[in-house]
Amino acid sequence: MVGEGVDRIRFVTHNRHKFREARTILARFGLEVEWVEMEYPEVQADTLEEVALFSARWLLDRVDPPFFIEDAGLFIDALRGFPGPYSSFAFRTIGNEGILKLMDGIRDRGASFKSVVAVALDRDSEPAVLVGETPGRIAESIRGGGWGFDPIFEPLEPGGLTYGELGEDKNRYSHRYRALRRLGEWLSKGRKHL
Amino acid sequence: MVGEGVDRIRFVTHNRHKFREARTILARFGLEVEWVEMEYPEVQADTLEEVALFSARWLLDRVDPPFFIEDAGLFIDALRGFPGPYSSFAFRTIGNEGILKLMDGIRDRGASFKSVVAVALDRDSEPAVLVGETPGRIAESIRGGGWGFDPIFEPLEPGGLTYGELGEDKNRYSHRYRALRRLGEWLSKGRKHL
Repeated sequence: MVGEGVDRIRFVTHNRHKFREARTILARFGLEVEWVEMEYPEVQADTLEEVALFSARWLLDRVDPPFFIEDAGLFIDALRGFPGPYSSFAFRTIGNEGILKLMDGIRDRGASFKSVVAVALDRDSEPAVLVGETPGRIAESIRGGGWGFDPIFEPLEPGGLTYGELGEDKNRYSHRYRALRRLGEWLSKGRKHL
Repeated sequence: MVGEGVDRIRFVTHNRHKFREARTILARFGLEVEWVEMEYPEVQADTLEEVALFSARWLLDRVDPPFFIEDAGLFIDALRGFPGPYSSFAFRTIGNEGILKLMDGIRDRGASFKSVVAVALDRDSEPAVLVGETPGRIAESIRGGGWGFDPIFEPLEPGGLTYGELGEDKNRYSHRYRALRRLGEWLSKGRKHL
């Protein structure tokens, strides 16, 4: 399945910032993004892929395709993937301080930020899943602004700076940027085949 | 709505130990429990009540009522309710050691273990929710056996011992026992009205 002939797609999210970011990135691929502001259930599962697929299937009964959704999480190696799919809850409860406390005295600080996009092009086929991943490490302290775990995650590239310190530059290295770029490539590749 | 005339009910769970515990407790109320070993989706939500209601509604399309499900979680005051509905994931990733690390240096060690039962008596009415809660505190170290967070949770009653140290006696004080007893009372009260 390729994203044949799609030049306009809906993004189901209640997050205005995510919508704007997606609109900017996908415009480079000649794609117009329409915002559907709507809540949907997210299932408990150990992988973001399972979570996104469940939600996309649920939405197929309620939203006209083509549409996509996006979900993201921070996976810390030494914590067996915690907080992973529950990053948002972990941020709201234990926060950056909690993660640093859990990592206290742990030498292996490897982690990755992952973004998963589930795309539904029509009602008859299973939604597709596209992944963007940014490898990095957990910083020793909270540095910089940004949102969520941005001030404690240092991506390998460009190196030495947290997402929070990178500011606008974060979008050149971010997991979400990588996933959305894949979506853009995938949909526009389909279009060229017409 | 009361549980009118119910003397036999299905328990949907993939956990054999939970089934056995429920069968023993509910037998005292003249209730026969049938085991339905089946997986079902659990939604991400900040309260166990929302999680259980979503699952019970989903199951209503697939299992003949009357049936019930049960979900439990540990809610730590100083951690804003963490790990709450995601206790199982938190146990599998950061474990008891992780919780103790998060509580390091925190004076307020208050916590409660909560069990939520969602019961569906027929297809036409909304499932009911019954709650059992055991107040307590997070111990300073891992003590005793048991499962999950049992070795770090000290219920207020009888006092000074963790769930893990209480062993079989745990069932006299446990959150699950309290929720299941409510279920038994509720269903048998309905029966007496016949």
